[in-house]
Amino acid sequence: MNLPQKVRIVEVGPRDGLQNEKQAIPTATKIQLIDMLVDSGLNYIEAGSFVNPKWVPQMADSAEVFSGITRTAGVTYAALVPNLQGYERAISVKANEIAIFAAASEAFSQKNINCSINESIKRFEPLIAAAQAQKIPVRGYISCVAGCPYSGDVDPNLVAQLAQDLLAMGCYEISLGDTIGVGTAGQIKNLITAVSQKIPIDKTAVHMHDTYGQALTNIYASLEMGVSVVDSSIAGLGGCPYAAGASGNIATEDLVYLLNGLNIAHGVNLEKLIQAGNFISNTLNKPNQSKAAQALNNKCI
Amino acid sequence: MNLPQKVRIVEVGPRDGLQNEKQAIPTATKIQLIDMLVDSGLNYIEAGSFVNPKWVPQMADSAEVFSGITRTAGVTYAALVPNLQGYERAISVKANEIAIFAAASEAFSQKNINCSINESIKRFEPLIAAAQAQKIPVRGYISCVAGCPYSGDVDPNLVAQLAQDLLAMGCYEISLGDTIGVGTAGQIKNLITAVSQKIPIDKTAVHMHDTYGQALTNIYASLEMGVSVVDSSIAGLGGCPYAAGASGNIATEDLVYLLNGLNIAHGVNLEKLIQAGNFISNTLNKPNQSKAAQALNNKCI
Repeated sequence: MNLPQKVRIVEVGPRDGLQNEKQAIPTATKIQLIDMLVDSGLNYIEAGSFVNPKWVPQMADSAEVFSGITRTAGVTYAALVPNLQGYERAISVKANEIAIFAAASEAFSQKNINCSINESIKRFEPLIAAAQAQKIPVRGYISCVAGCPYSGDVDPNLVAQLAQDLLAMGCYEISLGDTIGVGTAGQIKNLITAVSQKIPIDKTAVHMHDTYGQALTNIYASLEMGVSVVDSSIAGLGGCPYAAGASGNIATEDLVYLLNGLNIAHGVNLEKLIQAGNFISNTLNKPNQSKAAQALNNKCI
Repeated sequence: MNLPQKVRIVEVGPRDGLQNEKQAIPTATKIQLIDMLVDSGLNYIEAGSFVNPKWVPQMADSAEVFSGITRTAGVTYAALVPNLQGYERAISVKANEIAIFAAASEAFSQKNINCSINESIKRFEPLIAAAQAQKIPVRGYISCVAGCPYSGDVDPNLVAQLAQDLLAMGCYEISLGDTIGVGTAGQIKNLITAVSQKIPIDKTAVHMHDTYGQALTNIYASLEMGVSVVDSSIAGLGGCPYAAGASGNIATEDLVYLLNGLNIAHGVNLEKLIQAGNFISNTLNKPNQSKAAQALNNKCI
């Protein structure tokens, strides 16, 4: 039991959330969402990605999004990139940080990006070299840390080794992604125990999807292990485009509600956060997936 | 950290869940739901209540429900009752157990049942005396354990004292209800610490609502404290009729998914449980509120 005093929230809604929306979303809407999120106090926003628009058409306008946002001092606007070309596009529009990704499952890696895990991380070497030369921090995602939609169980030691490899390559932090939301609290604790034998706990983040209703419990279990960086998505937007039916990152509002209750500092104003979630939910004409937001919108108490 | 090896699930969907549904539900549907729940392996079902139908019209047919269910050996079919008259009605249709209730908030007690907390538990004395004479076990609910919709904060020591009083009066177990779902994990741990100074942990159950998305995390925190009896509601049916907008018990399916992951025994077949949840959700023409059920229905993996 080692709850952190402070948690850094990595808001992934504008990227991991919106990329799963099928409907066209105007660039101006994405920009307004990001500005509202920053206004709520969030200081790390994954604002877009520079992948092939054939794969992720919703992110085709990320350059325009990065160019249109109102920059606030102290806020990191990050971009997900798959290769050096994507990196250069991200930097050209002044992304402050980049994120790269690898899967903890060979089957997922092959189906998702058509190469082995080792090949996938090798491909990032020139990108990381360029980032280091330009002093651009690189964050590493590992997907499928608790299970793979194609091959089932995932070995925690493989995740731990991959985390160590990505850190050794130059990533400053590793975000452990339960991409399909199958993990439960004990499994997540075992995973973090394995990972913490390879990388420091303060370089470990968690990225939990709520597919099976377990995300917040998994985050709480992670906090108990000393993890102090948590990815979340406004209004619970998102999912995984590679796992049919899988949906829902943990809602940032529900995470903030938990952290408030635990007296863990995070710097976010819940009321303004809920306004941002209501804005994007209303614009997308879908229910706000945050239960805390629903409750407070309905003035349950 | 003291996770139990086994958890007893108290299924409250047919009572606490259905009582909040506005639409008319045929008695035969309620009976079929209960029979399906038992077939899934659940061995404790709160099958109805014998309160004034003016307060809770949905439960007006509880006598017919109790008379219509197919009794299975080893299964407890319980009824919520407010007074001796309700007790006698419940016993006349062979309820195996009864549940009584008190609020941990004076304001809630006054608004809900128009008397003080002490008056409310005094009223149960003749009922408990009758139950003891007939060897009918009595379970006690305490509502508003983590907050009151009318008066806000609730003192954990008041909850603990009330738990002790109800146990002393003859209840065999006390279920701590976060009626409006406002509690968070640290608060719940503090509450259980306070309660465990007054009553044994093995006589303590938790009853968590998911209004703010915290229910499963609160249950996990409770399990870590050694609690081994958990109330839940099939398909996440339910809420609180006295707190506008408050909705959603923890879904039994999501609880079972967590317990499976933790290797905690419970005796329930998740597949059959999901069939029961799908049956009632389809019949009520509403989405199944269990995320685990949604995920498995959509074959996410």
